[in-house]
Amino acid sequence: MKEINNLSRRRMLVSTGGAMALAGLGGMGSVSAQSAVPAAAAAKPKALPGYAAWKDIDSMIVHSANTIETRRAAFGSSVITPTNRLFVRNNVAPPSEDIVKDPDSWKLEVGGVVKPRTFTVAELKTLGLQAVTIVLQCSGNGRAWFPSKPSGTQWTVGAAGCVTFTGVPVAALLEAVGGMADGMVYMTGTGGEEIPAGLDPNTVMVERSVPISAVKDAILAWEINGEALPLAHGGPLRMIVPGYTGVNNVKYIKQLAFTKEQSPANIQQTGYRFAPLGAKGATTQASIWEMPPKSWINLPSDESKPIPAGQVQISGVAMGGMSAAKSIEVSVNGGKDWQKAEFIGPDLGPYAWREFVLSAKLDAGKHQLASRTTNEAGQSQPEERLENNRGYLNNSWRDHMVTITVA
Amino acid sequence: MKEINNLSRRRMLVSTGGAMALAGLGGMGSVSAQSAVPAAAAAKPKALPGYAAWKDIDSMIVHSANTIETRRAAFGSSVITPTNRLFVRNNVAPPSEDIVKDPDSWKLEVGGVVKPRTFTVAELKTLGLQAVTIVLQCSGNGRAWFPSKPSGTQWTVGAAGCVTFTGVPVAALLEAVGGMADGMVYMTGTGGEEIPAGLDPNTVMVERSVPISAVKDAILAWEINGEALPLAHGGPLRMIVPGYTGVNNVKYIKQLAFTKEQSPANIQQTGYRFAPLGAKGATTQASIWEMPPKSWINLPSDESKPIPAGQVQISGVAMGGMSAAKSIEVSVNGGKDWQKAEFIGPDLGPYAWREFVLSAKLDAGKHQLASRTTNEAGQSQPEERLENNRGYLNNSWRDHMVTITVA
Repeated sequence: MKEINNLSRRRMLVSTGGAMALAGLGGMGSVSAQSAVPAAAAAKPKALPGYAAWKDIDSMIVHSANTIETRRAAFGSSVITPTNRLFVRNNVAPPSEDIVKDPDSWKLEVGGVVKPRTFTVAELKTLGLQAVTIVLQCSGNGRAWFPSKPSGTQWTVGAAGCVTFTGVPVAALLEAVGGMADGMVYMTGTGGEEIPAGLDPNTVMVERSVPISAVKDAILAWEINGEALPLAHGGPLRMIVPGYTGVNNVKYIKQLAFTKEQSPANIQQTGYRFAPLGAKGATTQASIWEMPPKSWINLPSDESKPIPAGQVQISGVAMGGMSAAKSIEVSVNGGKDWQKAEFIGPDLGPYAWREFVLSAKLDAGKHQLASRTTNEAGQSQPEERLENNRGYLNNSWRDHMVTITVA
Repeated sequence: MKEINNLSRRRMLVSTGGAMALAGLGGMGSVSAQSAVPAAAAAKPKALPGYAAWKDIDSMIVHSANTIETRRAAFGSSVITPTNRLFVRNNVAPPSEDIVKDPDSWKLEVGGVVKPRTFTVAELKTLGLQAVTIVLQCSGNGRAWFPSKPSGTQWTVGAAGCVTFTGVPVAALLEAVGGMADGMVYMTGTGGEEIPAGLDPNTVMVERSVPISAVKDAILAWEINGEALPLAHGGPLRMIVPGYTGVNNVKYIKQLAFTKEQSPANIQQTGYRFAPLGAKGATTQASIWEMPPKSWINLPSDESKPIPAGQVQISGVAMGGMSAAKSIEVSVNGGKDWQKAEFIGPDLGPYAWREFVLSAKLDAGKHQLASRTTNEAGQSQPEERLENNRGYLNNSWRDHMVTITVA
């Protein structure tokens, strides 16, 4: 937890001063990334991969077979992201579709507990039931706006969605196995991806460790938005760690262990680390775990399509990260002035996002629309991103700004 | 409102005594209806009509081209009903699919206000934005269990779903037209169905009036669960009256008027009335408007498939009607004893339903599982339905019971 505290401190420093001088540059970066990305996608439209062929193609940007983004205007305004519009990101190609044909027979090995054993999903279903609505968000969402051009998918806002996962609380599972073994510090989940023969498993396997403080709200899910969890989203069984970035929500989980050390897998040791610019990932750096507060405007957001002058409903989504989004402000002049916007629709709990709206009168011309949120813990979305080598955790309000034309 | 008060009083009388003697009979009715309906559906499976071809056929029971029910085991446990599993019920065949091709150009005429005028959906979108999660439920849901065998679709539990509608608050629209004209008592919506030439429009048109007390929470919706409202659910624009039965949520609404009288349409004058057994509908009877509290168990609910003895998670949904569901009890012995069950998952507001669960140890044998809820206003789900000629508003906990086999 010390790692995250350090990270929060650095975040605080940036959000309260210092980087303000970069504002103009950030704004330019924002505009160019916005127009560049859809153009590139339009130029070379890619087909959906077979395991995700059921996605609504018109709502998606297909970066690659393992990286599929939701278009900014396709989130809707009903809080929950429709499953057929939810982003997909796999670190490794998914296992065979066969594993979701009889989901109840999928097996989970549970270790680092008083009475280690293996459960089928059918058995897990007898232990408890909980539904939790969370923002599922890729660690690299917003990477496209890092001026350092980090390697990796150039996500803008669409590697995120707000969905309800349903399954068994990890706490109920722990009760069934007599609790954790003594001295455990991490909850470690192992994905069911196939490891090609001859490879060191640590170089390939998706095994992530999170602090055991995350156990409280974690579930093992077999359902998303009311339907059986599809392969694309980690079915038959996925670890859900509310408030943590996507990679920590291990797909097709086959092993859950309480451990004294973090996983030896590369994806834990050196991957998903908050590394300084130019530096490689290392265990001395903060692991990418908890999400910071963040918001963005979804409508209007089409920079190529002018809207009529007059009253406009400016709407978007705001998440608090590890606590609920408490307030939201909107600027129609690039962050010079801010107005309090209103949360609308149902409140689905601290890990969900809220829909927000500001009714504003806009005259003809260009307008830079921005939003910034503050969570229950008092953390505010900063003006500037925290630079890091791989472009993680971008929650800069300036980067997420849109420039619209009013005719 | 007096009508509803009378209805509530009658309901109260039934729920607190009197009809208890019918318990045994009600139980038998319940079991036979449960087993009969799936068998009939399996024997003669019907295809989905074109306008609803995108529904998940495995989750649906197709009664007819205009009446499509969600299977009891297909609701999921994530609160929101996936749109492709949501029931469909049309009083009249839907208009052409053409009307949802350019939804922003759909027109709504607004009358009975200080400044009457017509709005396009695009214009409505500039007036305000609100999202509301409601139980959408056909007035006749549960009709299959009325011993009087009322005419109409023999729905069991599946003419209901919990969904989020997004649109403009009627209150914001009223502000834009200078408010209601003096002395108006009802909000009257007119559907966009085509009226065949030569017919008296009153015999066909779907025009419903609700008390203006409903304006407070009502919206005109263009979106459902994050997606543009499809024709099957009333797109491009639907009146949403939270807490009121399905028919009051007028589809493809083309006219909204504030009126001194209820609509002259048959569907308002004589249709959807709480008529005594054997009597025809009349304006002297309560109109079918507000929904009463109701709950039912979804899992386990397959009466033909034994489940293993031991710990079982009994889960379902509970709605409060006009106020939130406050508590929920479950019985595993046909209503002899009751245990407090637990609400799980997010609370999406007073008009949504809640997911609930009871963890119970069940021995081998047959078990009658029942649930009953009480809302914030103190109204409890009664043991027996309130008899009425058309089989509306069934919220009897006994009728909704399931009998499962534990092996």
